[in-house]
Amino acid sequence: MRIITTEQFMESNRNISQTAAKELDNSVQDIISQVMQNGDEALYKFTEVFDRVQLDQLTVSKKEFDEARNQVTSDFLSALKQAKVNITSFHQAQKEQSWFTNEKSGVTLGQKVTPLESVGVYVPGGKAAYPSTVLMNVIPAQLAGVEKISIATPPQANGTINPHILVAAAEMGVDVVYKLGGAQAIAAFAYGTQTVEKVVKIVGPGNAFVARAKKWVFGDVAIDMIAGPSEICVVADETAPPSYVAADLLSQAEHDEEARAICITTSEKIANAIHDEVEKQAAKLDRKDIIQKSLDQHGTIIITENLVETFKLVNQIAPEHLQLMIENPLEKVAYVKNAGAIFLGNYSPEPLGDYFAGPNHTLPTSGTAAFASPLGVYDFVKKSSIIHYSQNALQDAAPHIVTLANTEGLTAHANSIQIRKDDSNA
Amino acid sequence: MRIITTEQFMESNRNISQTAAKELDNSVQDIISQVMQNGDEALYKFTEVFDRVQLDQLTVSKKEFDEARNQVTSDFLSALKQAKVNITSFHQAQKEQSWFTNEKSGVTLGQKVTPLESVGVYVPGGKAAYPSTVLMNVIPAQLAGVEKISIATPPQANGTINPHILVAAAEMGVDVVYKLGGAQAIAAFAYGTQTVEKVVKIVGPGNAFVARAKKWVFGDVAIDMIAGPSEICVVADETAPPSYVAADLLSQAEHDEEARAICITTSEKIANAIHDEVEKQAAKLDRKDIIQKSLDQHGTIIITENLVETFKLVNQIAPEHLQLMIENPLEKVAYVKNAGAIFLGNYSPEPLGDYFAGPNHTLPTSGTAAFASPLGVYDFVKKSSIIHYSQNALQDAAPHIVTLANTEGLTAHANSIQIRKDDSNA
Repeated sequence: MRIITTEQFMESNRNISQTAAKELDNSVQDIISQVMQNGDEALYKFTEVFDRVQLDQLTVSKKEFDEARNQVTSDFLSALKQAKVNITSFHQAQKEQSWFTNEKSGVTLGQKVTPLESVGVYVPGGKAAYPSTVLMNVIPAQLAGVEKISIATPPQANGTINPHILVAAAEMGVDVVYKLGGAQAIAAFAYGTQTVEKVVKIVGPGNAFVARAKKWVFGDVAIDMIAGPSEICVVADETAPPSYVAADLLSQAEHDEEARAICITTSEKIANAIHDEVEKQAAKLDRKDIIQKSLDQHGTIIITENLVETFKLVNQIAPEHLQLMIENPLEKVAYVKNAGAIFLGNYSPEPLGDYFAGPNHTLPTSGTAAFASPLGVYDFVKKSSIIHYSQNALQDAAPHIVTLANTEGLTAHANSIQIRKDDSNA
Repeated sequence: MRIITTEQFMESNRNISQTAAKELDNSVQDIISQVMQNGDEALYKFTEVFDRVQLDQLTVSKKEFDEARNQVTSDFLSALKQAKVNITSFHQAQKEQSWFTNEKSGVTLGQKVTPLESVGVYVPGGKAAYPSTVLMNVIPAQLAGVEKISIATPPQANGTINPHILVAAAEMGVDVVYKLGGAQAIAAFAYGTQTVEKVVKIVGPGNAFVARAKKWVFGDVAIDMIAGPSEICVVADETAPPSYVAADLLSQAEHDEEARAICITTSEKIANAIHDEVEKQAAKLDRKDIIQKSLDQHGTIIITENLVETFKLVNQIAPEHLQLMIENPLEKVAYVKNAGAIFLGNYSPEPLGDYFAGPNHTLPTSGTAAFASPLGVYDFVKKSSIIHYSQNALQDAAPHIVTLANTEGLTAHANSIQIRKDDSNA
């Protein structure tokens, strides 16, 4: 883990642009077009190629759900249920109402909020299984009122799905789980096949294939976001125990080799103490190889002159996870413009939010917190404007509308107003 | 304009997929990469190639703003000002507050709402000028609290910008207007050049180049949506004057040759009457050539058996503009799931919404109302989650978090919790 200044950090910190992925795009586009053309047949084929499994069927059976239930501990089930309660409670507060106003005589204007009809949730498989992804995506969708929710997740080597994922799905009442991963899963959700029902929105994290496939189908369906590598930024002062800060940086670094763990502090002493703690703790952790690669590539402790510089840097990084382990952290939130989630104080580490506290763990990565939000109930509804004018109200407005339409050269627009005006003059 | 049944309509109505634009993509990607590499130089070059104008500078000068003010009528200014009042009033209701809860002892959870730092508004030029686009994009951005708003719009043949656009920009207090169109404008907004300041979100409609460029830069910056051809769907019964319905269909058809004007009715008599009115009125309109091509290609009157079939069809079409010219239209809104804006009754034609009533005219097109919303204040803010747990609150939660982290194989996550638990046991 390197210790550097703000200036050194800014020089080394260049993001890769969305336009720089042509080769990956060729594979991804090929997979998508084969799924569009050949449906299930392509799905079986790609699952054999990429997941090295020959499936009998693409969906998880009732029997597999039942078996999964016997493979998880009661501790897991109880933790899962409490997390569900907390996540549900937080997301309840995001629910939006349809509304209307009658500010002018004869005029009703409003906004109707309607749940999306169907949503496909992608749950990554591979090395680890993520039951938390099921809760974090399904709960806001259900609160929004989405009726059709299905899950796609890649099969394990033996053709089954990790039991924790299935138990989480069952706990949420989702019984359509496809054994599908990668770009083929995204294509199936976007365009439908014989087995997979087309959805109107695809959510959930995934690898580079999943992310690029989502970019390609975006517009034909909605997507949540294009997720990049995960990152944490811990702002620490002398009140932050270096061992805690180190543990939190390491929890980020274990996600994958591209994960970025960044710490910002004004204290060189704290910087050194955190650096040493990171080395000490890293050696003892299960995923120390991944952690070491992540730290070597991206692990950074930045020493700043003061809090003004610190928050300027935070807002430039726009971190997915921001921990403020400094005095009076709640007050300092006023200086944060760009961050996915803000964790305050010494007892609110990132894993608390990843699993349990309630706010969503699907957060904007790689600096996109500058313009994107955590996944929420708002991602599973859409709005329609409502406009009703009485005959009199339209009469009053008519001259202005005709003027504006004619200014834009759209005389058929003007005619649509004029024909009603002439009629009532008659 | 053809008159057909639901079945015939469904057969003929296949959308073009997002993946079917490879050739256009090659040009667009080339433009983007040249702008990224050569900055202003590329902008001057592409403006010469595409807009056939050799510019002295890329920005509109104070003098040009002043001159524009003298070129517009007082009727226009007065209509513009009233439209601004109405649009502002409607969008005020969309403003969101930051919130927090303290449901458990020692726990603060919340959601901070922050305006985007900067927004680029694309305003189409070419054949017509659209001052309404300025209002509809800038007003919600300003209400959201966006501080830096700039506009890009292609120059006219003589190198100036249409005065109505400049007056609208000035009325909104936007003084940075770039003389730029097409993919080069989008690239400049997304990546910045010597003259054009990079923004975090790009909004506004445009041609196919603009739309594809927005798709490509999406992820590096936010975009509003990928706009396709505009469409109207009028549901009419015997209470709808055929001349009004015809005028409204024609107002849509004049937008461009790809614009889709659709009418749905259960009455063959009304269908025929509307058909005849369309022919009669079309002949008298300024843009009759565009209108005729739009009607020939896409103009459709669909005869349905009943209102159940009608609304099923409406929801499948997911029209950008939906007019309900039927008895008790407000009641019928309950059956509408997918529509950008819903216009009710015989005196709420689409142009009322395009310019004046208050709701946004940037609406999801080409069936994307199934998952997308009108542009609104919510498009110009982003959210950050807030999480604060006290030491005791974390103690209580720790066992569940550790269980979930270990289940996912993320033991450094578990360690981040455990290290705090062990500490307080000591």
